[in-house]
Amino acid sequence: MKQVTAVSPAADLIAYYGEAASDVYFQRARKTLAGAHVDAVVAMDFFASQAGILCGVAEAVRLLSELLKEGDQAWAIGEGEAMGAKETVLRIRAPYSRFGVYETALLGMLSSCSGWATAAREIVDAAGGKRVISFGARHVHPLIAPTMEYSAVVGGCAGCATPLGAQLAGLQGASGTMPHAMMLLFGDTVKAALAFDQHMGDDVLRIVLVDTFKDEAEESLRVAEALGKHLRGVRLDTPSERGGVTVDLVKEVRARLDQAGHGHVGIFISGGLDAERIREFEAARCPIHSYGVGMAISAAPPIAFTADIKEIAGKPMTKRGRIPGAEPNPRLARVI
Amino acid sequence: MKQVTAVSPAADLIAYYGEAASDVYFQRARKTLAGAHVDAVVAMDFFASQAGILCGVAEAVRLLSELLKEGDQAWAIGEGEAMGAKETVLRIRAPYSRFGVYETALLGMLSSCSGWATAAREIVDAAGGKRVISFGARHVHPLIAPTMEYSAVVGGCAGCATPLGAQLAGLQGASGTMPHAMMLLFGDTVKAALAFDQHMGDDVLRIVLVDTFKDEAEESLRVAEALGKHLRGVRLDTPSERGGVTVDLVKEVRARLDQAGHGHVGIFISGGLDAERIREFEAARCPIHSYGVGMAISAAPPIAFTADIKEIAGKPMTKRGRIPGAEPNPRLARVI
Amino acid sequence: MKQVTAVSPAADLIAYYGEAASDVYFQRARKTLAGAHVDAVVAMDFFASQAGILCGVAEAVRLLSELLKEGDQAWAIGEGEAMGAKETVLRIRAPYSRFGVYETALLGMLSSCSGWATAAREIVDAAGGKRVISFGARHVHPLIAPTMEYSAVVGGCAGCATPLGAQLAGLQGASGTMPHAMMLLFGDTVKAALAFDQHMGDDVLRIVLVDTFKDEAEESLRVAEALGKHLRGVRLDTPSERGGVTVDLVKEVRARLDQAGHGHVGIFISGGLDAERIREFEAARCPIHSYGVGMAISAAPPIAFTADIKEIAGKPMTKRGRIPGAEPNPRLARVI
Amino acid sequence: MKQVTAVSPAADLIAYYGEAASDVYFQRARKTLAGAHVDAVVAMDFFASQAGILCGVAEAVRLLSELLKEGDQAWAIGEGEAMGAKETVLRIRAPYSRFGVYETALLGMLSSCSGWATAAREIVDAAGGKRVISFGARHVHPLIAPTMEYSAVVGGCAGCATPLGAQLAGLQGASGTMPHAMMLLFGDTVKAALAFDQHMGDDVLRIVLVDTFKDEAEESLRVAEALGKHLRGVRLDTPSERGGVTVDLVKEVRARLDQAGHGHVGIFISGGLDAERIREFEAARCPIHSYGVGMAISAAPPIAFTADIKEIAGKPMTKRGRIPGAEPNPRLARVI
Amino acid sequence: MKQVTAVSPAADLIAYYGEAASDVYFQRARKTLAGAHVDAVVAMDFFASQAGILCGVAEAVRLLSELLKEGDQAWAIGEGEAMGAKETVLRIRAPYSRFGVYETALLGMLSSCSGWATAAREIVDAAGGKRVISFGARHVHPLIAPTMEYSAVVGGCAGCATPLGAQLAGLQGASGTMPHAMMLLFGDTVKAALAFDQHMGDDVLRIVLVDTFKDEAEESLRVAEALGKHLRGVRLDTPSERGGVTVDLVKEVRARLDQAGHGHVGIFISGGLDAERIREFEAARCPIHSYGVGMAISAAPPIAFTADIKEIAGKPMTKRGRIPGAEPNPRLARVI
Amino acid sequence: MKQVTAVSPAADLIAYYGEAASDVYFQRARKTLAGAHVDAVVAMDFFASQAGILCGVAEAVRLLSELLKEGDQAWAIGEGEAMGAKETVLRIRAPYSRFGVYETALLGMLSSCSGWATAAREIVDAAGGKRVISFGARHVHPLIAPTMEYSAVVGGCAGCATPLGAQLAGLQGASGTMPHAMMLLFGDTVKAALAFDQHMGDDVLRIVLVDTFKDEAEESLRVAEALGKHLRGVRLDTPSERGGVTVDLVKEVRARLDQAGHGHVGIFISGGLDAERIREFEAARCPIHSYGVGMAISAAPPIAFTADIKEIAGKPMTKRGRIPGAEPNPRLARVI
Repeated sequence: MKQVTAVSPAADLIAYYGEAASDVYFQRARKTLAGAHVDAVVAMDFFASQAGILCGVAEAVRLLSELLKEGDQAWAIGEGEAMGAKETVLRIRAPYSRFGVYETALLGMLSSCSGWATAAREIVDAAGGKRVISFGARHVHPLIAPTMEYSAVVGGCAGCATPLGAQLAGLQGASGTMPHAMMLLFGDTVKAALAFDQHMGDDVLRIVLVDTFKDEAEESLRVAEALGKHLRGVRLDTPSERGGVTVDLVKEVRARLDQAGHGHVGIFISGGLDAERIREFEAARCPIHSYGVGMAISAAPPIAFTADIKEIAGKPMTKRGRIPGAEPNPRLARVI
Repeated sequence: MKQVTAVSPAADLIAYYGEAASDVYFQRARKTLAGAHVDAVVAMDFFASQAGILCGVAEAVRLLSELLKEGDQAWAIGEGEAMGAKETVLRIRAPYSRFGVYETALLGMLSSCSGWATAAREIVDAAGGKRVISFGARHVHPLIAPTMEYSAVVGGCAGCATPLGAQLAGLQGASGTMPHAMMLLFGDTVKAALAFDQHMGDDVLRIVLVDTFKDEAEESLRVAEALGKHLRGVRLDTPSERGGVTVDLVKEVRARLDQAGHGHVGIFISGGLDAERIREFEAARCPIHSYGVGMAISAAPPIAFTADIKEIAGKPMTKRGRIPGAEPNPRLARVI
Repeated sequence: MKQVTAVSPAADLIAYYGEAASDVYFQRARKTLAGAHVDAVVAMDFFASQAGILCGVAEAVRLLSELLKEGDQAWAIGEGEAMGAKETVLRIRAPYSRFGVYETALLGMLSSCSGWATAAREIVDAAGGKRVISFGARHVHPLIAPTMEYSAVVGGCAGCATPLGAQLAGLQGASGTMPHAMMLLFGDTVKAALAFDQHMGDDVLRIVLVDTFKDEAEESLRVAEALGKHLRGVRLDTPSERGGVTVDLVKEVRARLDQAGHGHVGIFISGGLDAERIREFEAARCPIHSYGVGMAISAAPPIAFTADIKEIAGKPMTKRGRIPGAEPNPRLARVI
Repeated sequence: MKQVTAVSPAADLIAYYGEAASDVYFQRARKTLAGAHVDAVVAMDFFASQAGILCGVAEAVRLLSELLKEGDQAWAIGEGEAMGAKETVLRIRAPYSRFGVYETALLGMLSSCSGWATAAREIVDAAGGKRVISFGARHVHPLIAPTMEYSAVVGGCAGCATPLGAQLAGLQGASGTMPHAMMLLFGDTVKAALAFDQHMGDDVLRIVLVDTFKDEAEESLRVAEALGKHLRGVRLDTPSERGGVTVDLVKEVRARLDQAGHGHVGIFISGGLDAERIREFEAARCPIHSYGVGMAISAAPPIAFTADIKEIAGKPMTKRGRIPGAEPNPRLARVI
Repeated sequence: MKQVTAVSPAADLIAYYGEAASDVYFQRARKTLAGAHVDAVVAMDFFASQAGILCGVAEAVRLLSELLKEGDQAWAIGEGEAMGAKETVLRIRAPYSRFGVYETALLGMLSSCSGWATAAREIVDAAGGKRVISFGARHVHPLIAPTMEYSAVVGGCAGCATPLGAQLAGLQGASGTMPHAMMLLFGDTVKAALAFDQHMGDDVLRIVLVDTFKDEAEESLRVAEALGKHLRGVRLDTPSERGGVTVDLVKEVRARLDQAGHGHVGIFISGGLDAERIREFEAARCPIHSYGVGMAISAAPPIAFTADIKEIAGKPMTKRGRIPGAEPNPRLARVI
Repeated sequence: MKQVTAVSPAADLIAYYGEAASDVYFQRARKTLAGAHVDAVVAMDFFASQAGILCGVAEAVRLLSELLKEGDQAWAIGEGEAMGAKETVLRIRAPYSRFGVYETALLGMLSSCSGWATAAREIVDAAGGKRVISFGARHVHPLIAPTMEYSAVVGGCAGCATPLGAQLAGLQGASGTMPHAMMLLFGDTVKAALAFDQHMGDDVLRIVLVDTFKDEAEESLRVAEALGKHLRGVRLDTPSERGGVTVDLVKEVRARLDQAGHGHVGIFISGGLDAERIREFEAARCPIHSYGVGMAISAAPPIAFTADIKEIAGKPMTKRGRIPGAEPNPRLARVI
């Protein structure tokens, strides 16, 4: 599939990013400038409107490395690093005609990816040392879901839900337990758990979803009894109609599992979690093994990036409202 | 390019949506169910957590039409229609094994596209009868930017910025004026405007960006003088450092243009516009021809969709917290 | 028991209200006035600081009828009627020495009882035509709990929890279902329900508490299966740790009972209900048979009442800050 | 009088608390359990929904000492001590049949009394070292007013208004000055003060109410002139219609008394005081001798208490939503 | 005195307004323009930043009539009329050299006076038909106090406190009752009232201040008793330390006066009154004869006025940010 | 002109302040007291309702020095010093007949002047060490504008706009740059600047207003080019319709001037500045040379002052609501 190549742009993505998915006014500018024989080496700076975690710059640099030629230059801050509001995170010094039309693509990569990475970082910080898994692939279009998951991992997530997301992020494999649909088709949580245990390979953790039919505390004990030492954990994903997952619920399930001798069984929670709610669980010292987070990462808005010409033919120059000249930023490293 | 095929899924997208970009736990469920020889005809309902404009359902139905077989059924509400909170907008009745693993992809299409279309609709309503152009391609990753633009047009926008977005949405072509970079390379707005006029075809409107070097009112008069009747309009995109575009600025430019005999020149505005600000312009009866809107549409969050099994083998059945049975919705039309 | 006589005051309550439970400064005033041979016929008005439902006035009038003598007079508004802020609800015209020391008791009866009745009325109004039962005896000291229940019934409640409360309020008997303690001693809800059915008389409704061990929806079906047509209803009292009782929960239990053929089984809810939450259930047209309300009535604060002398020996007279003279109130009826 | 026995429960209060004022469903549970021959030694824990000052536990223990038999056990935290939210403050380990039906009474004692004591403690803390007198008997039904006063003293008040309240709390006598009614009957504050001085015993402090007819500052000087060294203090109870008692008023009265040579006369204030207003007086270093507080204590809502079975026959056991087992609390002391 | 001439500018005020009290940069501009021989007939528009009551324009026109020559023109809206935000209220068409240096003075007259008149109008509207007297001369410098009072009368006040203010406003005389100082020197309100009655002419209303020594209700009765039919009214000016004047106080004084047969005595109130508080008195149908208002008028901020050149030598011309050309306003009337 | 003498009161101002601009009730009190032969030496204290900067006291003392006679006394805090709320800032001990009628004038001087000085002090503190010029003469009536400017300088301003204000404040001369009107008459900023440079004396700083026709950054460069080393600074007074003056604008103009070699040109800003906005500029370390402030000072409300008699004939005495006696204040210095 071609989409997979998003992380290693080849000829057709060059065309795609320069024509099909490029703002048409850059194409018109290219034609006008060429017609008038106007071109110059410019310095163009990219910066974000707000502070956050920079992401997408690795892909941007890969694209630029296909476009720029000998003598052209680029500098950048590293993928996953913190960036300040209006701090220059990418600078290109090259003839405008070489890359001007790709401004849309470059900005888009930075905007979307940094938005997701920044949201993930806040969540991960909230969780202290606990593992956070990005489970929000379902909330974004499948063409972009793996890129979202890659960004979440750059932001600090320990895992994600789709195989391509995991591959982009350099993880061993995707993470997941069991969907409600499977429980319903088996008609009973214990039956489903036993079949899952029988048919999955050793690399798959036995973590059983326990809120489909019965009260979570009761079902956790039934499953623990049935799977014994095979059971690695239970997942609580209580629907909002039943009050969602709460501190009290987790503590009660833990206590009942322990009283029944199942101290080895971990508790995994998901469902509407965000940084605020995770901070509550952590503040209450809730005995949770890992958090599954969806929309708090996947629905995070992009961070607006801007690209400004700051020099033309070696002279400070910029549009009204901005300060001319490429101000030095010691954090920028030469990348091309 | 393969990405273009997003709107006509073929074999490799089937594979992509069912494997690479699918939640791994659906793949594990498929293996477990198959190993245990469990399957059944199920009714699965898709609904949104909040009211909005439904979008992405056309693509979802195209995907399903590749997956389902004779005797299987699907119903849906139409692309671009208003949907209520928790209203069923798509229902599938088929063996679970046929489509279960595509739940991630189906939800993702609906979530992203409906989020953008809903935001666009609010903006378009705010603008009264004025044209709204989606200019936010630069704020989302280029793999998905055209899909965002398609959704914006479904929501009511009259135009968008990239050629592929325009193609997906069935428009004649993309919309755009001039970027600041071109102005800077020419070093003067009037020079740039004359070159643009010379090199563009007749199908391109002469709308000149007037905030790069000088005060907008002064520059508008210079450009109007230089291009005469060729000039269709001026675009005000005043940076926030100069106070942004305001009601007073637009009225003043209009008055100065009129006093100088340039009543035929329209005013196009952009820059940080959202529904609230557009309502202010409209309430002040501001003489604006069209609005260019960016992040207020492109950064709109996805709307969370959920898919619930409601029947198994003809019997009402669902998970705890939901009401069993596929409740009739007269707005659903048979699509497969 | 003597407490029961609270509603028919006899000699020892006269003594109690005039000495043991009377502000000592009224006793000192009595001694000083007697020592100085000062007394006069006064008009004293009782009024509340805020609008509400008047309650306790019946008991106050009974007390006054023991105290006043021929030629003395009293007027009042009726028990359970609405009263305005600062409206005179009780007026006494008699020698001050006859009743002055009972001001504490008279004010206390009005304050406590009107506070409870006013809160009950708001709840009852919120519930539309549905029955509201006062279940808050446990939140107030047992010496006063039946008086609180009497006031709640004056405010509009259809039932209350203790036998003495029911007797004071003139009801056939107290209302109640099953406590969690009984369920726990039986160890299973169905066993407890069957024993209850066997040992209770015909006058006791079979309403079974279904949240002790299992999910409410599951347990409701088990109980309905076991008791068949004997079962009058289920009570949902879901603890806050499980999200409390919600609109969605009630609707789901109703749907699952109906789908299983138990349409005759009613739903009774309790647990942290107040007027605001009851309005939500009613606005959502939730299929509820009756509401059990605790602290929203029993913890209602007393309404402050004041008693002011307005005339002395037939002349307008009062303290600074108040308007002298007994202003006519056509709602007052002669009671003594 | 029988009500006085509230602090030393005898046979008829046992009957009252177990039948007349007990939730009827506990009586039904008793009959059902007896009919099914079900009983067991249980551990039942009592705890409050919020932090506060524990009160009523002394009376509860007295009741239990009448009910429990040899081999039964109870532990408690001390009367007047601070308690945490959900902290176990009373634990009973005995056959359920012995005390189950008294749950209503036990909870009610704790709820009402702790509500009043907690409010009193906040007021007393606000007043620094100044004396606070509970004057709110008039705002609660006379059957319970002395119990309210006892609780206020447990919370820290230095005095209360009724003789029985003072007796319950172990005080020498009740506190009080003069009511407005007495002033009005005398027609002049000085006349009333002189008669009071003549007829009261030496144990009664000469504190004269000075706001009935004239401005407080003027009246204070008249009274001080008339009573000379007999006068212990003046009470300001200015009605809200005259602006209530304020910091400025107290300071002015103090200055005028001092300038006229009445430095020995103290100032006592009352009227709508609460913790917030008392903090203002203290922050302004207002020369006040003591505060009389009414509704801020007497209208305090009860604190909800809950009783949960935590063990049955020696095994951890509780209802869904709670953690089974009687968790050790080192603050609990064996009381039975 | 020269200050009195503020309303009929003569030679020395021309000099004062053009030199001593004129922004120095206008003087520098005059010198520069003269040096460069630059002058032209201009149209200059004056407008306020917010809506309000126009005041000061009469004085402005008087000043202009001294400055302008034959052929020059001026238009204005009338003194005391409502004006809209940014509405042109004064337009001058004359050679700039003739009046440019007086811009400071013209703006200052309009700003101060319109600020006061606007505040007065809001107060007067709040008072319904009741008379409002401006008593705030003491809060502004004596050089300007009469001008403030004139503006208050333009805004609708029925009287003011100083003789010059009354003269400027065309009133018969100033309004006033008695100051606290006089009461204190007499040492008794009744003594002071009798002396006042003896020494004042018939044109002075006998309105006695009754809050200096005693409670207002008590003192009102004493004064009414002493002056009998001579007494026209009492003034309540209760200090904030005694709660200020309240609705309840006025009603009580009214009732006590009426009960004692002094129905002919009016009630006048003052002290911290503003529109909000006056609306409360009126909403409570408080029996008040007139209101004395101080800082709510005298401390009202000036309303910012701006003067813009809109035409030069007959052509639309103005500074950036404003719309060129003198827009017709049908409310403007030719004044010069 | 007579107004100039406001700072050295002579005979006619004595008359003006005692008759024309005095509250008429003081004149009536004078007549009544004289008629009744009542007079006494009193101590009268002046104090403000809120903390601030004392101003106007110098003028008040000058007035008193004309009024008081041998043996009379006065104490005061110094002009420009901080004063506390209700702190005595001026005390007079003299026969009441000597000065009573001047209470209006004395209060008015203190109120207006302290209001302006207090506002100025807050602004000056906000500006750190930067110079603040009072430019608000145009917002107050010209009779009082110089007094306002004097007060602003007492509060800390470094300059003011009118010659008389500067004279009152003891400054060398008034401050000012160029008005927009002059720019418009010249039709071009550079032409106006050159003429200004030619015709002004050496004592006038060449500070050119740069926002009349063109963008400020562009115009600043044009002016700097034209005037070279003669140019001392540019003034930014951007209208709100163009976003006002912002941190970003100042920084950009600074950068563009520096890049073009005009580092010696300072930046002066004005237009709607207040303490809050100045703090923002300072917090952003904005390279500004001085601030021009208008309404934030000139529209500051007066601070209410009160004068209370505290002693009569050597004895503590005052009105109800105040504490009798002249409390010592060590900050008071003998001034008469």
